[in-house]
Amino acid sequence: SRSIRLAVIPGDGIGPEVVAQGLKVLTAVLPPDVKLETREYDLGARRWHATGETLPDAELETLKEHDAILLGAIGDPTVPSGVLERGLLLKLRFAFDHYVNLRPSKLFPNTPTPLAGRPDIDFVVVREGTEGPYVGNGGSLRTGTPAEVATEVSLNTAYGVERVVRDAYARAAARPRRKLTLVHKNNVLVHAGHLWKSIFDRVGREYPEVTTNYLHVDAATIFFVTQPERFDVIVTDNLFGDILTDLAAAVTGGIGLAASGNINPAGTFPSMFEPVHGSAPDIAGTGKADPTATVLSVALLLRHLGYRAEAERVEEAVAADLAGRDASAPRTTDRTGDELAARVAG
Amino acid sequence: SRSIRLAVIPGDGIGPEVVAQGLKVLTAVLPPDVKLETREYDLGARRWHATGETLPDAELETLKEHDAILLGAIGDPTVPSGVLERGLLLKLRFAFDHYVNLRPSKLFPNTPTPLAGRPDIDFVVVREGTEGPYVGNGGSLRTGTPAEVATEVSLNTAYGVERVVRDAYARAAARPRRKLTLVHKNNVLVHAGHLWKSIFDRVGREYPEVTTNYLHVDAATIFFVTQPERFDVIVTDNLFGDILTDLAAAVTGGIGLAASGNINPAGTFPSMFEPVHGSAPDIAGTGKADPTATVLSVALLLRHLGYRAEAERVEEAVAADLAGRDASAPRTTDRTGDELAARVAG
Ligand SMILES: CC(C)[C@H](C(=O)O)[C@@H](O)C(=O)O
Ligand SMILES: CC(C)[C@H](C(=O)O)[C@@H](O)C(=O)O
Repeated sequence: SRSIRLAVIPGDGIGPEVVAQGLKVLTAVLPPDVKLETREYDLGARRWHATGETLPDAELETLKEHDAILLGAIGDPTVPSGVLERGLLLKLRFAFDHYVNLRPSKLFPNTPTPLAGRPDIDFVVVREGTEGPYVGNGGSLRTGTPAEVATEVSLNTAYGVERVVRDAYARAAARPRRKLTLVHKNNVLVHAGHLWKSIFDRVGREYPEVTTNYLHVDAATIFFVTQPERFDVIVTDNLFGDILTDLAAAVTGGIGLAASGNINPAGTFPSMFEPVHGSAPDIAGTGKADPTATVLSVALLLRHLGYRAEAERVEEAVAADLAGRDASAPRTTDRTGDELAARVAG
Repeated sequence: SRSIRLAVIPGDGIGPEVVAQGLKVLTAVLPPDVKLETREYDLGARRWHATGETLPDAELETLKEHDAILLGAIGDPTVPSGVLERGLLLKLRFAFDHYVNLRPSKLFPNTPTPLAGRPDIDFVVVREGTEGPYVGNGGSLRTGTPAEVATEVSLNTAYGVERVVRDAYARAAARPRRKLTLVHKNNVLVHAGHLWKSIFDRVGREYPEVTTNYLHVDAATIFFVTQPERFDVIVTDNLFGDILTDLAAAVTGGIGLAASGNINPAGTFPSMFEPVHGSAPDIAGTGKADPTATVLSVALLLRHLGYRAEAERVEEAVAADLAGRDASAPRTTDRTGDELAARVAG
């Protein structure tokens, strides 16, 4: 009989609320013969305040024993900025070599968008997840004095760039439109930009069926709002991917709907699935959080573990639910979870 | 009698076309007693192909003798990416210590926007211009091999951050809404982010009348499309400012309208005014380029040199022209320049 050993990190703010709905839908969609074993990890602001720990080595070790991780959100205003993000969220992404940070963007019918004309948006951002300006390689000299100098180093390797670029080409080749866009800023960040562009061009020769183009990140933001329909698959660096995927979420119904997978394609370590949104402390506990992004992240998790039909059922349930939504009658977090669970089960 | 010694760098692509219109409007708006002396500098792709030079020291020296610089656009597909940007455009910004890169965004009535609901957009981005990831401090090891490592170093100093933050507070204090937003990514780029945030908070205590807030750059892009009316003055780092101002341009009528000033507030070196758009080689020579961004940059130039009434006349002319535009009857670059020149003169 089959089983999924799932690690659950509810985290901060609305994290626990949305994760509960994700688990509800996951339980409802799984075939009866699949045994779901979950283990919850108490990590985040509460733990840090109580013990000063963000992610102890022992827990990092036991997390490795899981098939996948479902994460809610990390970050809290009572904790100095960066402590939980660097010490927990990014530590997981780096330790588990999540080099493909997969972020699909789709504008579902009936979903509100700030864009006039409701363009046809359906693209995937393949954000590099283990390099770039996120490596935590920086420092500060004479901190707090008028002579302070602070640095942040973006590290980029051929090894790291090539593997994520290859993943993006494979995804583009498997999609009907077969288009791949590299986004960088190679007219200013010439060294990293040259590395990305030359690998992108070289690997592209193995994929003659994929149409490619290059955009500077600033220009890309323009097209995200003026012609988002032109994008199919986008591959980009860690920081540019962070920025672009929030913008992509904003034009496709908001971060309440944006899912992500931090994927280790080799399967060496568990992959981690999380909504793109943060912990939203301002609405935590109010029942206003939309759990849809987490539920769509569960769909990515299912697909990653080979439950393709179940992943599609979850995505169809979300599409149907969104199609029937009435913006004038908002639902609670829990209620939306119930409806989605009923749809996938039914 | 008064005089303006203006350096003109038409540059590449549509640069010469739009600069010609900027000069037309400048000539038309200046009072008869002001002597306008222009000197054109042949810099850009043509020069580089002919001589291999981007910005020779001798020319950098003579450029210093001007009161201001008007620049069209730099960059051409026939030149390796970065050569002209780093060797000419950024060299000027750094050599002349243009630490305030001023980029106003305003949605004029009748101007098309991709945003539904036509929000009321009127903000200014104060982009740091001489530090951050733009310093050109990076390199590549084992270039072109599978073992390549490429770095880009973001350098940030208390000296550099404090002066631009002070400039932004002063601008915010002088505007009716008195709001200042710091945009950074201090949960990931913790060293640079801490430097920015602590200086932002400290200087803010001298401006109790200015309401402040902080946004991560990814979240800021969301608000640019969902609630752009919330912004008044934004201060941010060089790279985030680059990205945000293209997005800002996109939601306020496109980069055909976005002006910028690379300002050295101390007046030690000439300030430089340029449209935010690039050289747009695809439409160069077709007469399709909109010179409005250059004309609005001329308004910033006039204000910087103390010609406040003239700056306002140019801005009013642009507003009136935009109000009367007929999207179904596009005009040539030259024709738009004529109309604007007629308006400021009349
Ligand atoms: C919380 C933060 C560290 C994180 C990131 O920057 O990657 C978030 O913005 C995201 O996009 O997942
Ligand atoms: C051309 C390029 C170097 C430049 C920049 O990145 O600053 C441009 O995008 C801008 O915004 O002025």
